[in-house]
Amino acid sequence: MVEPWAIHETALDLERLAQTESVFALANGHVGMRANLDEGEPFGLPGTYLAGFYETRPLPYAEAVYGNPEDGQTVVNVTNGKIVRLLVEDEPFDVRYGELRRHERVLDLRAGVLRRAAEWVSPTGRSVRVSSTRMVSFTQRSIAAIAFEVEPLDDAVQVVVQSELVANETLPVAEQDPRAAAPLSSMLVSDAFSGQELEAILVHSTSSSGLTVGAAMDHRIDGPADTETALTSLPDLARLTVTATPTRDAPLRVTKFVSYGWSGARTVPAVRDQVAAALAGAVSTGWERLLEEQRAYLDTFWAAADIEIEGDAELQQAIRFALFHTLQAGARGERRPIPAKGLTGPGYDGHTFWDTEAFVLPLLTYTRPHSVADALRWRHQTLDLARERAVSLGLRGAAFPWRTIAGQECSGYWPAGTAAFHINAAIANAVDRYQLITEDEAFEREAGVELLVETARLWRSLGHHDAAGRFRIDGVTGPDEYSAVADNNVYTNLMAARNLAAAADVVERHPDVATQLAVDDEEAASWRDAAKTIFIPYDESLEIHPQAEGFTQHDMWDFDSTPSENYPLLLHYPYFDLYRKQVVKQADLVMALFFAGESFTADEKARDFAYYEQLTVRDSSLSACIQAIVAAEVGHVELAYDYFAEAALLDLDDFEHNTRDGVHIASLAGACIAALAAFGGLRHHRETLSFMPRLPPALTRIAFSLRIRKSTRLRVEVEPTQATYTLLMGAALNIRHHGQPVTVTSDDSVRCPIPPAPAHERPRQPAGREPARR
Amino acid sequence: MVEPWAIHETALDLERLAQTESVFALANGHVGMRANLDEGEPFGLPGTYLAGFYETRPLPYAEAVYGNPEDGQTVVNVTNGKIVRLLVEDEPFDVRYGELRRHERVLDLRAGVLRRAAEWVSPTGRSVRVSSTRMVSFTQRSIAAIAFEVEPLDDAVQVVVQSELVANETLPVAEQDPRAAAPLSSMLVSDAFSGQELEAILVHSTSSSGLTVGAAMDHRIDGPADTETALTSLPDLARLTVTATPTRDAPLRVTKFVSYGWSGARTVPAVRDQVAAALAGAVSTGWERLLEEQRAYLDTFWAAADIEIEGDAELQQAIRFALFHTLQAGARGERRPIPAKGLTGPGYDGHTFWDTEAFVLPLLTYTRPHSVADALRWRHQTLDLARERAVSLGLRGAAFPWRTIAGQECSGYWPAGTAAFHINAAIANAVDRYQLITEDEAFEREAGVELLVETARLWRSLGHHDAAGRFRIDGVTGPDEYSAVADNNVYTNLMAARNLAAAADVVERHPDVATQLAVDDEEAASWRDAAKTIFIPYDESLEIHPQAEGFTQHDMWDFDSTPSENYPLLLHYPYFDLYRKQVVKQADLVMALFFAGESFTADEKARDFAYYEQLTVRDSSLSACIQAIVAAEVGHVELAYDYFAEAALLDLDDFEHNTRDGVHIASLAGACIAALAAFGGLRHHRETLSFMPRLPPALTRIAFSLRIRKSTRLRVEVEPTQATYTLLMGAALNIRHHGQPVTVTSDDSVRCPIPPAPAHERPRQPAGREPARR
Repeated sequence: MVEPWAIHETALDLERLAQTESVFALANGHVGMRANLDEGEPFGLPGTYLAGFYETRPLPYAEAVYGNPEDGQTVVNVTNGKIVRLLVEDEPFDVRYGELRRHERVLDLRAGVLRRAAEWVSPTGRSVRVSSTRMVSFTQRSIAAIAFEVEPLDDAVQVVVQSELVANETLPVAEQDPRAAAPLSSMLVSDAFSGQELEAILVHSTSSSGLTVGAAMDHRIDGPADTETALTSLPDLARLTVTATPTRDAPLRVTKFVSYGWSGARTVPAVRDQVAAALAGAVSTGWERLLEEQRAYLDTFWAAADIEIEGDAELQQAIRFALFHTLQAGARGERRPIPAKGLTGPGYDGHTFWDTEAFVLPLLTYTRPHSVADALRWRHQTLDLARERAVSLGLRGAAFPWRTIAGQECSGYWPAGTAAFHINAAIANAVDRYQLITEDEAFEREAGVELLVETARLWRSLGHHDAAGRFRIDGVTGPDEYSAVADNNVYTNLMAARNLAAAADVVERHPDVATQLAVDDEEAASWRDAAKTIFIPYDESLEIHPQAEGFTQHDMWDFDSTPSENYPLLLHYPYFDLYRKQVVKQADLVMALFFAGESFTADEKARDFAYYEQLTVRDSSLSACIQAIVAAEVGHVELAYDYFAEAALLDLDDFEHNTRDGVHIASLAGACIAALAAFGGLRHHRETLSFMPRLPPALTRIAFSLRIRKSTRLRVEVEPTQATYTLLMGAALNIRHHGQPVTVTSDDSVRCPIPPAPAHERPRQPAGREPARR
Repeated sequence: MVEPWAIHETALDLERLAQTESVFALANGHVGMRANLDEGEPFGLPGTYLAGFYETRPLPYAEAVYGNPEDGQTVVNVTNGKIVRLLVEDEPFDVRYGELRRHERVLDLRAGVLRRAAEWVSPTGRSVRVSSTRMVSFTQRSIAAIAFEVEPLDDAVQVVVQSELVANETLPVAEQDPRAAAPLSSMLVSDAFSGQELEAILVHSTSSSGLTVGAAMDHRIDGPADTETALTSLPDLARLTVTATPTRDAPLRVTKFVSYGWSGARTVPAVRDQVAAALAGAVSTGWERLLEEQRAYLDTFWAAADIEIEGDAELQQAIRFALFHTLQAGARGERRPIPAKGLTGPGYDGHTFWDTEAFVLPLLTYTRPHSVADALRWRHQTLDLARERAVSLGLRGAAFPWRTIAGQECSGYWPAGTAAFHINAAIANAVDRYQLITEDEAFEREAGVELLVETARLWRSLGHHDAAGRFRIDGVTGPDEYSAVADNNVYTNLMAARNLAAAADVVERHPDVATQLAVDDEEAASWRDAAKTIFIPYDESLEIHPQAEGFTQHDMWDFDSTPSENYPLLLHYPYFDLYRKQVVKQADLVMALFFAGESFTADEKARDFAYYEQLTVRDSSLSACIQAIVAAEVGHVELAYDYFAEAALLDLDDFEHNTRDGVHIASLAGACIAALAAFGGLRHHRETLSFMPRLPPALTRIAFSLRIRKSTRLRVEVEPTQATYTLLMGAALNIRHHGQPVTVTSDDSVRCPIPPAPAHERPRQPAGREPARR
């Protein structure tokens, strides 16, 4: 039985430990804790992360090239506050020894906690039951807490519990996978440490990036009469030792409160006091109240965000898991970047990429708009760095970094990094979409206009008109990382055109802000002109859009001679070979069919989709969700369902074999978007909110709500033959259902029949890369 | 006065010391010695190099990418045998102290020696005359020798001369110029050292590449009666100390013989004995005989190779300097690579590139064909490595490395390295040209066929036919390094087609060798087909050939906003910016106009040349010579003369400010080719030897000889209004003069009138990048 609101593990597979540490990770967007076992070992990869906290390292190059970034940024595994070790009569509780009679871990998606229960017989024959409940608080963003309980299963037994803060943990050696993190260890230098009674604080700094981090812990102990405690504090270790002889009637319960704080500006005493204060607040709130706050927070979230799926219990669970991790990544980011792996692992060095804006923020816009504003305000804060980068690239406006933690470009391979300018359009599009849906005037004036203007300036300087008057953007890289540095990538050009047009529109709405930004009418007109004359290459003989100019003339990748173990191709073939052939890592032209769908006819979409299906190997986790959406639109609902399942189950099934480094937030968010956009058929182009709902045969119902502008809430229920639109809040709403205008009022729900899907032959995929049939 | 047969320096400019160390460097293709002062200091950059002797180092990458080479190779500054230090009554002879009353260095191009004379007053007031003559022997390839003499200018004075072998010299820290070498020091580990009487030997090994190098020295002393000697030998230092009190009548003369040898296979004793034996041979030959052999060798060389230029004494000198350095780079290479800087400096890590085959070997083919065969046999030796590389790139045949010392790819930036497949066509073309001119049947059967076959296989697998039946080569980089990874680079495609056709021809001539190489008729037919259907893009609206497909649609580089201090552009702009715009580092399409001139009409050449002139910034030393040749062909003889002068004077005038790292062998060879091909109008397409001679107004005469096949020698003299062809040896020869067939017989010279050049407007170059008017 698959639980709809929990991820449940009943056996501990040490081979898959790192993957489960990511899957069961807890985070709130500010603090993240991998699901390492309480006792610290065995581990796949220990990890505790703080949003925006990083160390710098020099980026090496075999050959010096002008403009390459000199320094990289890497997420730091900060002081580990999760550790609660246990000795049972001198025998350390370690699941690799003795006998683990029972093991259970539950990630409770409504309570927002990770529960663990174990029954263990020590090598010397003593049996204990260990249970813990761990949370990272959504309501108190600096706080994590653990309730740890131990009781004997037979006679009373003496135990020692060590609750610790550990800095500079030894990390396992990283592998040579470019998608993993660069190895860094012993990065924290002790600034201060103290402790008394049940409370201790460690403060450290990074030596190169100069950031200061504080971690503090306090405890509440509930145990048998003989319970004693002792506290030790050292530069890299604080330890509360609790000794007791619990019985079945009188277990030992240790409740641990942990707080974190960091700063690049404040002094060591200030950071120390900050974490002490946060800790005091949490202790005062108390464990039970923290639990209640957590559930209340999540109740609100689920009420707005839940996507109900009937007919496939596993996908119902998976989509809630996906929503939960998206929330965990973005909830309390508060003007810090949202990394590709959230705060669940060190993958991609903890960097944020374009997928935050392209996948994560659009989902959050309908559910947690405030988090979107925060994430975009973080981009706005880094505008000066992006402007500097543009200057160094010979461009105007702002060139946002392909990968970064603090705003500086950290990409050491420019063809797949700096050249991927489409990130700027993704940011602009996220701004535009946020604005469209929330009508947050303050955000627009304070951050939105400037983000749109500076990215429009970038595009205007990046492109040029050719003799025929077409606006060309040459030598850039689109989303597909198996091509690079090509001319007139269709996705990029269409998104740039939208960016340019949106900037022209927004300065018209805010002439005073435009004036402050030195935008005059000529400049805005030049944006409109570039947007209108954007060059979209088209292959007349194949009747499809090339991904970029010339793409369809390239040789086909020899899929039939590519053994399945050679995927992902980037680990087995040089970019030289990949770039020059027709092989697609991830939706690129197909992404344009969704993101800029209004620029294509239905026939073009169908032909383009079929063409790129045969080339797309999905070596990126950002592909399946988009393919699901476009497959559904062009009539391949069952194929859409297969892709949807792949995206939703990516981390639970460890489809890409790298969930160990963290869950794939953008793919999880993308799976949720796919539920809305593939089966709900949701599209939101400017003022037009439209639906083309259509269920795959396996599903009997899908339902979700949308938050539109401040006061409108629309509920959508899709069943096999009809869709029901209900206005939960707000004034009458004009929508489209399968192309027909429909008005939804607060009077009553509107039921609309769903036309049958057109019969199309299922397109082919590269041999061996077909999605699993669901 | 400019001396026609010597480079003469009369003042020592310490700021230009490193440049002069390159210009005055001596080498024979096996051993190279920079012109460091005898006394070792001051130096710009100490350097002694052996062809093919290198150390490996790991190549670092900011982001791991499949297929990147893991190890680089770097030329090693081996044991310095040049040092002869002098103490004048306890005061070290050091030109930075005391007073240098007279300084003179002469590179004698006919004697093949570097002479130095100095008069120096020590800080304590003692005056001495120091003179030295240094040679690196062309006839005894392991040998260098120095005659060092000191005499007082006033009273007798006690002097100490220290003649040394020094290993692991401290090198100055390298700068961040990608064209310089990667810094490596203390690379040699002592294996053995010994010494007795006047002779000493040091043997060292590299720790990573595992090569063993031996250096030995012996001496002959001629001094006043009180002359005494003492020998020290240590792991990194051997020193002969000579004390004497020379007078004006009885100077002290120390003749030093140095021998070098290295091996990657032989043992330390074997290498030690090898250098001892070579040394014994040289000592037995003696200084005077070495000088005589050297002159005789050069007499033969100049008789065949000299290019006489009348009307510009500086260029006459420069072109002989160029011929001399080309000889020094290639004379005794003997199956070792010829590096871009020869053995005159560590620039480009001592690597060989395509320019050896494209520029150096074509010149040597007419003058030193044996060196060409050796250089190509070295490539043949590395075929297995090139075949492995092809496999790792997913290709057939052989993919020769873009840069290497020992045959492995050492390029750490693949878009400008591995992707530049045209190196394979350059090798094939050098084979084809060598064969055409020498008819060396043994070479063809043993090496030539296989080189042509394996490169043809590479091209066949690199390209593919499109739907229209055109053979396309996508995603490769042409000669111009300001573009990369483009489709259908015209130069590459034309050279590939010639490669494919030449391979088809050669297997037809040698069916037995073809069978050994498993070439069947179908395969050869597929090469001919690919060659015939090769796609050559053409811009119909501009009526010019784009450098690669789409090139002419790119934005123009903003030359007017590029300040002169921002050249070379690669040090001031990112490749991202350069690649996507119309800006050309070095002749690329224009190179095709010369190398594959028969594929273009005269009108196309004129239009193409004019178009690319406005885009070409000549940030590479490989450009001016080619521009000179094509400029002359299309009628811009004065412009050709300007480019020719720039190429010829590149190192003497330090035009690129990096002669410090070594002279630019390919540019020097290119200048010589330009003399023949621009003003002699020499072209050699398959069986047709043709001339379109035309002098610039400043020149009154140019004359040169060509060695054609084993027994034919043709002398060509060009004067302003006529050309004279004289058969020095061999049977009647059919040539073309300005398109007209002419037969030259041994009976008499043939005089042909030179038609006046067509009047064309001088094309424009980018602002500030016009060649200096001569």
